[in-house]
Amino acid sequence: MRVAVLVLLLSLVARNCDGAATDIELDAKAQYLHRLDSLNLLLYTFLLIATVLTVWTFKHRRLRFLHETGLAVIYGLIVGAIIRYGFTTSNTIQHLPVVPAAPYNQSIPPDILWFQVFENKTGGGFGNKTYAYSFRGEIYKQDSEIDKKATFDPEIFFNIILPPIIFHAGYSLKRKYFFRNLGAILMYALVGTTVSSFIIGALMYAFMQLIPHLSTSFTFLDTLYFGALISPTDPLTIISIFNDLHVDVNLYALVFGESVLNDAVAIVLSGAIQNYGERYLTPGSNKFELVAFFQAMGDFVGIFSLSLFIGATMGCITALLTKFTRVRDFPLLESALFVLMSYSTFLIAEASDLTGVVAVLFCGICQAHYTYNNLSSDSRQRTKQLFELLNFLAENFIFSYIGVSMFTFPKHHFDIGFIISGFFCALLGRAANVYPLSFLLNLGRKPKISLNFQHMLFCAGLRGAMSFALAIRNTVSEARQAMLTTTSLIVILTVIFQGGMASQFLSWFNIPVGVDEEVEVLSHNGVRSYNSMQDGSVGVGTGGKPNEKALLARIWGNFDTRYMKPLLTHSRPTLLETLPVCCTPIARLLTTTQQMTQDDMGHKIDSDSDLCLDEQEFERRRASSQPTHVRGISDRSHV
Amino acid sequence: MRVAVLVLLLSLVARNCDGAATDIELDAKAQYLHRLDSLNLLLYTFLLIATVLTVWTFKHRRLRFLHETGLAVIYGLIVGAIIRYGFTTSNTIQHLPVVPAAPYNQSIPPDILWFQVFENKTGGGFGNKTYAYSFRGEIYKQDSEIDKKATFDPEIFFNIILPPIIFHAGYSLKRKYFFRNLGAILMYALVGTTVSSFIIGALMYAFMQLIPHLSTSFTFLDTLYFGALISPTDPLTIISIFNDLHVDVNLYALVFGESVLNDAVAIVLSGAIQNYGERYLTPGSNKFELVAFFQAMGDFVGIFSLSLFIGATMGCITALLTKFTRVRDFPLLESALFVLMSYSTFLIAEASDLTGVVAVLFCGICQAHYTYNNLSSDSRQRTKQLFELLNFLAENFIFSYIGVSMFTFPKHHFDIGFIISGFFCALLGRAANVYPLSFLLNLGRKPKISLNFQHMLFCAGLRGAMSFALAIRNTVSEARQAMLTTTSLIVILTVIFQGGMASQFLSWFNIPVGVDEEVEVLSHNGVRSYNSMQDGSVGVGTGGKPNEKALLARIWGNFDTRYMKPLLTHSRPTLLETLPVCCTPIARLLTTTQQMTQDDMGHKIDSDSDLCLDEQEFERRRASSQPTHVRGISDRSHV
Repeated sequence: MRVAVLVLLLSLVARNCDGAATDIELDAKAQYLHRLDSLNLLLYTFLLIATVLTVWTFKHRRLRFLHETGLAVIYGLIVGAIIRYGFTTSNTIQHLPVVPAAPYNQSIPPDILWFQVFENKTGGGFGNKTYAYSFRGEIYKQDSEIDKKATFDPEIFFNIILPPIIFHAGYSLKRKYFFRNLGAILMYALVGTTVSSFIIGALMYAFMQLIPHLSTSFTFLDTLYFGALISPTDPLTIISIFNDLHVDVNLYALVFGESVLNDAVAIVLSGAIQNYGERYLTPGSNKFELVAFFQAMGDFVGIFSLSLFIGATMGCITALLTKFTRVRDFPLLESALFVLMSYSTFLIAEASDLTGVVAVLFCGICQAHYTYNNLSSDSRQRTKQLFELLNFLAENFIFSYIGVSMFTFPKHHFDIGFIISGFFCALLGRAANVYPLSFLLNLGRKPKISLNFQHMLFCAGLRGAMSFALAIRNTVSEARQAMLTTTSLIVILTVIFQGGMASQFLSWFNIPVGVDEEVEVLSHNGVRSYNSMQDGSVGVGTGGKPNEKALLARIWGNFDTRYMKPLLTHSRPTLLETLPVCCTPIARLLTTTQQMTQDDMGHKIDSDSDLCLDEQEFERRRASSQPTHVRGISDRSHV
Repeated sequence: MRVAVLVLLLSLVARNCDGAATDIELDAKAQYLHRLDSLNLLLYTFLLIATVLTVWTFKHRRLRFLHETGLAVIYGLIVGAIIRYGFTTSNTIQHLPVVPAAPYNQSIPPDILWFQVFENKTGGGFGNKTYAYSFRGEIYKQDSEIDKKATFDPEIFFNIILPPIIFHAGYSLKRKYFFRNLGAILMYALVGTTVSSFIIGALMYAFMQLIPHLSTSFTFLDTLYFGALISPTDPLTIISIFNDLHVDVNLYALVFGESVLNDAVAIVLSGAIQNYGERYLTPGSNKFELVAFFQAMGDFVGIFSLSLFIGATMGCITALLTKFTRVRDFPLLESALFVLMSYSTFLIAEASDLTGVVAVLFCGICQAHYTYNNLSSDSRQRTKQLFELLNFLAENFIFSYIGVSMFTFPKHHFDIGFIISGFFCALLGRAANVYPLSFLLNLGRKPKISLNFQHMLFCAGLRGAMSFALAIRNTVSEARQAMLTTTSLIVILTVIFQGGMASQFLSWFNIPVGVDEEVEVLSHNGVRSYNSMQDGSVGVGTGGKPNEKALLARIWGNFDTRYMKPLLTHSRPTLLETLPVCCTPIARLLTTTQQMTQDDMGHKIDSDSDLCLDEQEFERRRASSQPTHVRGISDRSHV
């Protein structure tokens, strides 16, 4: 626990004392620690600044062999190595073994220790004082000084870093194509991630039995946990390259949709596995209980769907608030309301023992789908830009940290056997997700997922922030430490190499990329034209018709257009037209004058047309002075 | 320490254990605490949501007797009272007194306690384990259960809440009028705040001697500290009303400039006083040492100017980075760079034992004055809107917290004598700042500061976030607790009453307000017209000519236009024209092609014309559909 948050705790100490000589020493020490913490944070800030400047250079020179997240990792590794081998800080942390003042028979350690020091006249000591000490965790032999260098509490990932990333993913989702491919995405994300977790878990357990020195240290539950944490894929690198190259929109939707949802699946699944272990296994035993297993699966489904429900509900409440008040007259208030409602979603889920990250994901999707339509143009831009920036900073921070922690995190355990098995199983797990499920999907699906698409989905399976965060969350045993090391290595290597080769993969698999400048000019104008043109390219990719929709998407789309949108936004048709006659009084109450009086234009500028992401793309393109749409991969460049 | 930051610490505990029965109990407890913390944060989030919605209602109905910060305080008070008297939580925190395992003779308590628990076969206890406990602070008798309710570490104010507020103040400063009134502002802020601190300190000390039960508990240093913390004024409420009413720009500059700078002065001054106390006074003694006093004053000047230097330097480095790279082609990278550089300013100052808050203030001013001109339009908007939003949230949070903490913070000490003296001295201190200094200023100043302006300056002296933050930072003795209580009350009452009467004050003192719609339409167009029109109104207010500048402002302005702006921005004249001939090679290196080729327009859209604030104002006005400029105070409404 090294960063800002501790800064606060520590500085508290500095201020709570006055006058006495001991307090001055205490003050000096607290100030020293505060400085140390500021320096630590400064290190990461400078790392990010270096990453930003290098990314700019790369983009400027149109180099695409390394993505920004890859750069962040590499810089992190370099700085981590320098810290590890370059500096030796003197041990300034004092430890003192203590024993209870009176016999203590409780089964759990107390929250607070009161360290009483009695009158000590001679040394000018602290007199009759009592100091409070709060619980930090268990001590293991490996805890050494390096612990204090540039590392921080893993829970920061789950409470500070991941929420904006996940919310942004939901908020910037291209919903049109997401909903069109809903069936396939749910299949890959829900079924696929679960299947992949179990296959990796089983395979790893088998491998562990073959390696003599590992056979005893890993239980099946351990390897299953490893399977759950290594299964989610990370969209960042691939998606940013897809964006640059204007890749086929359906492929985009599949890759992005899957990786957004499988993060959510993995976090809940790993939580269920952990709970299963804590509840039903006595230490040392390794007995599998079927009933308990189904209870754990019930946990998984329950927590996932309740979190989803909370997220969606809070999104809809925000939509109602922005629809029925004129808070849009004051964009600052409106943006503040938007941010506060989204943040409270996370807190409500966490306070109810559910998964905040899953809740904000679905909150983000609802905010984009409904609330976004009610916002003033100022707030639309402000919220989009805010979360884009937060996402960028959080992402690059996490990848820098993965690099740095490879050297500075004290609880790594390098085991070559586990690492090699891990790499092998991660690949196999990805294959077990993509190919069989695609085969099943193609049985019922009209625009089939071609084999080249499947290869691309396989190659897009980088591991990223979520895997790392889940791995570093628990490093209590050697088994867990080996998992962290292997996960870090898998993340680093896939992000650097698979990420770097993404555009290569695209050309190998003949994935349709790029949009012709002429087509864009010929079609309508502005933002809409970009969409229409993308619609056209769907046919190229999959052979299906542009507006062909899966059954699931049709049912949902129909319900959404008839009831949800009229209720939550100013869109047409209104509820007066769609609800049965008996409900007219209620429908009238829920329909605004704006909704009644506006012409059909209101429906057209709906966020369903993916305005959210495209407008942003469009603006970015406009802001840049470089030519952006040229034929062929080689001379295509990011804007 | 109740909020998010602790969430992390606590959840760490939950994850660091697996298998054993005790760990499950530990896990459950950690989860319970995590839930409690989420609920606490949720409370404040809901408070802010309620504030936002009520503020909207007020603005919508054009009510102006209560400002948003006043509302936040009132809601906070209500919720605080409910928490205080409505709930009784059971004590879930376990305390255990411990003693050292071996004799301990050090003069300061250790950082970490190792709580060793030896084999305990019978009870199924925790076996041979060691737990780490980290230092929290000294324990006093008042520490009771209420401590755990809705309160959090005061240092959060200095490290998380204040920096964005202060940066925003610097970034949105109307620099044209700020620099024009630089002399007066520096006088009020630097001299005025110091004078006011000493007068309040001395008066309070005198009062304390008159009140029997207080005479022994306050040293002169204590009352001086109180003087320093109660002296800074808070601009929020007044400035937002000034904005609504388009008050005279020079008065605006005086009030805003002073209150921005005196926050910086107060934080450094109170630090110097505290250092003086810690260094030169042995406990109990109250001897005043002249040498030490001047050393403390040296501290004050040194820390203030070094922090200023770091802030300005980092601002200039950002300007150079944005000028000489084409990072502006990628607005997201550019915005990220801007935010990271500004944040690193805070960290650098903190890591060097200087004052981060002061550094970010001057960094903000430089960012607005130079960097802003180099930014792409996307980044300009994004950074402005980002900090506006952060500022809004941080501000309202702090005022909600002031309200809630009035009831829930465990270390309040109500002493009616101290409270009454405090109110009286705060008024007197403000008067001692405004009237004598205005008299001195008017001796040398051409557009004199009229008596009505002086009255308005006096009435604009609300106390706010900085006073509260400084007061709650140290609540170790009863004296300090009485100061916190008095400061909270002064803040609450001035924000609610003085803030609510601001528009009344304006009409009492015949302050020129409002800009005619016709004037704005008749003059040029768009953004510039708003400025020109404001230029015109200067004459009305003070009788001076629009472009009349003080000597200090002239010298600085000349240097700035000839050397700083050409170096740091793309403005004209270039350094080639302003530097002596011998420096031509360097000048050529520091002049960009853009600077050479652009026409004179480049100079005109310079940020010196207060584009920063006005553009925002302008957009907000445009976004709203309501009429905004009407004559007379009564029917003027905020946009």
